[in-house]
Amino acid sequence: MSTRKPPPAARTEGLDDPVVRMFQAVLGRPEVMSFGAGIMNPAGFDLGGIRAAFAAALSDDAAPSSLQYGLAEGSPRLRAAIVERMAALDVHAEPSEIVVTTGATQALDLLCNALLDPGDVVLVERPTYVVPLKRFVLAQAQLISVPGDEDGLDPFALEAAVIEHRPKVIYTIPTFQNPSGTTLTVERRAAVAEIAERHGVWVIEDEPYRELYFGGEPAPSPIASRSRENVLYIGTLAKTVAPGLRVGWVLAPAEVAQMLIPVKQAMDMNTSTIDQAAAAIYLEGVDWMRRASELRAVYATPMRAMIDGLANVLPEDSAFTHPRGGIFVWVRLPDGWSTRTLLERAVEHGMFFMPGSVFFADIEDDVSLRLSISNHTPETIADGMTRLAAAIAGMPALAR
Amino acid sequence: MSTRKPPPAARTEGLDDPVVRMFQAVLGRPEVMSFGAGIMNPAGFDLGGIRAAFAAALSDDAAPSSLQYGLAEGSPRLRAAIVERMAALDVHAEPSEIVVTTGATQALDLLCNALLDPGDVVLVERPTYVVPLKRFVLAQAQLISVPGDEDGLDPFALEAAVIEHRPKVIYTIPTFQNPSGTTLTVERRAAVAEIAERHGVWVIEDEPYRELYFGGEPAPSPIASRSRENVLYIGTLAKTVAPGLRVGWVLAPAEVAQMLIPVKQAMDMNTSTIDQAAAAIYLEGVDWMRRASELRAVYATPMRAMIDGLANVLPEDSAFTHPRGGIFVWVRLPDGWSTRTLLERAVEHGMFFMPGSVFFADIEDDVSLRLSISNHTPETIADGMTRLAAAIAGMPALAR
Repeated sequence: MSTRKPPPAARTEGLDDPVVRMFQAVLGRPEVMSFGAGIMNPAGFDLGGIRAAFAAALSDDAAPSSLQYGLAEGSPRLRAAIVERMAALDVHAEPSEIVVTTGATQALDLLCNALLDPGDVVLVERPTYVVPLKRFVLAQAQLISVPGDEDGLDPFALEAAVIEHRPKVIYTIPTFQNPSGTTLTVERRAAVAEIAERHGVWVIEDEPYRELYFGGEPAPSPIASRSRENVLYIGTLAKTVAPGLRVGWVLAPAEVAQMLIPVKQAMDMNTSTIDQAAAAIYLEGVDWMRRASELRAVYATPMRAMIDGLANVLPEDSAFTHPRGGIFVWVRLPDGWSTRTLLERAVEHGMFFMPGSVFFADIEDDVSLRLSISNHTPETIADGMTRLAAAIAGMPALAR
Repeated sequence: MSTRKPPPAARTEGLDDPVVRMFQAVLGRPEVMSFGAGIMNPAGFDLGGIRAAFAAALSDDAAPSSLQYGLAEGSPRLRAAIVERMAALDVHAEPSEIVVTTGATQALDLLCNALLDPGDVVLVERPTYVVPLKRFVLAQAQLISVPGDEDGLDPFALEAAVIEHRPKVIYTIPTFQNPSGTTLTVERRAAVAEIAERHGVWVIEDEPYRELYFGGEPAPSPIASRSRENVLYIGTLAKTVAPGLRVGWVLAPAEVAQMLIPVKQAMDMNTSTIDQAAAAIYLEGVDWMRRASELRAVYATPMRAMIDGLANVLPEDSAFTHPRGGIFVWVRLPDGWSTRTLLERAVEHGMFFMPGSVFFADIEDDVSLRLSISNHTPETIADGMTRLAAAIAGMPALAR
């Protein structure tokens, strides 16, 4: 055999993350309680409904098409069901404006493939969800973060950033944001839509958590209800049906949706046809009022327990959000504290949270952290808070 | 409202295709028999086995994890089952070398994301499957095609192209190739592996059709059985279980597989967890000898009917492949004929095939065509051949 030359290296820059590796390592240590992951509580799965939907999708009549390749844009039946769901949110669409994707994550993957060239500027929230950040890094986009507050993204800061940086895309999670738990107000939703239209920018509106609300009132209508022309809306069944299904969608203006179809086909031909068939059947039968109250029963009580618990254990001069929905609470430790050091202590005490650093696109942060309530009960949260308190009590003076 | 500026345009160059649009339009015309698509024959689905696998995946014990998010690299149970399957093909791997994907198409999507930069050279077969061509166009790769014959890719032409064009990747479908139906011989598999090692190039080996063989002997072992270091093997359950599942995989050297994981996570978090659970359960129980004979019963007879039929209807000086497996026959019309004109006639007579032009990366072709036998019986093939004969008889002299 002649001399062997190694093949070219694969891409890694900015994708691999020591925090994500630590998070995964903790998953394998059952003695460490994880408040890190956004996994869903199995108590919130409508197992009977899901089983019935899969059985129907695999019936003698349905199976030949459920098991076959499907249209790249998604099954007509599922797209019709999604259109109905969007109409209930005041977003009026046609099936030809929907492209079904393998979860919300692939919806963003699709939009990145179709819209972004290396070097394009993307504005994101400060902080924002880590998986989209990684996807934008993969697209070699230039990421600029825009600050906000308890009412979500700050429109004045947003417009200033749009003028200064000329982005192609603004990426936002307006409702029960990941990681901050904040919700964009109705006035700010209008402002974001106007800014996008005024400056010719896309808004990617990612709304996985809308149905998980705890107050009497649901969140304001999507930004897409105000500007269909400039908004690319991403929806998912991960939180309302099950994450394991991997069914999401993009709602885009018709001419953009048509351009997305061949891109989606080159990515994975089509999203699992059987999952799509089951999802369509499930959506056709679901009572959304009842589903929302089932989800509220699972997620509202742990959120209340987390908010109450944090008030008792966090050091003085800490701050944390009080989400009215979703699954995440965002904590800011007092100035001078180190989240990284606290996390080391917390893991020693058998408790894990996500350090805030992974949620920032362009700034260093060692004073924030994210807690997920999604797979917890008030009891496990109380236990976790005791462990966190012990970690805080043991913090060395230097790291405070 | 202030003046509105339109958002930036989405990417379309080289992705949208009039032939693909025509193909899709024909799907909506039941009076046109399609020999265009590579869809699978529902008679080949093991519906009982698939139903049992989904029922087990949704059992009380399994459902909480089947419906949850999963590991980006795929479920340990499914990866273990894939390792066993690969071992039966003389490819010895560890579960840590497998990354589960949403079908073989997404396996290539993942490899493009992880390996290719705009302008990178990719060598492909002349002809090759259209969907990978589109994915390479999306990656802005420079495509160079390499000729072959009934024994597959020509190693001398391959090495000459490697030396001349310095590719990063050689993409090949060595077994029952799409669209040509040819199979790379054992000697040429060894030669391709050696060329890759000698020149430091990746081989992406895409093998969806291996199990659909009609002769007494299966195809030679994968190229990956000879060079694990330079070969990225793509497998899928689309042809052996069902395309609707969308379960495929990449087998890569361990250090490459580790780099693929965060890329895959940024693409869609993980492939449908429920499909993965059902696939693992199915694979654990499947008798491959029996499955292969069931598949042979469905696909061998129509292939024989197609080969016999073509011999009777094609004009003198045509040539066509005689595949020993897979679902495609590749036809070359006599010099001077126009496939495009013949296709127009054929559609008028209620019969569609894929014009060869879509399968070429870098040359124009109007004398080739691909016929799929996958969703046909000997009777529908006889009917289709009659329609093709009528189209051929009506060809204008000029286009001959």
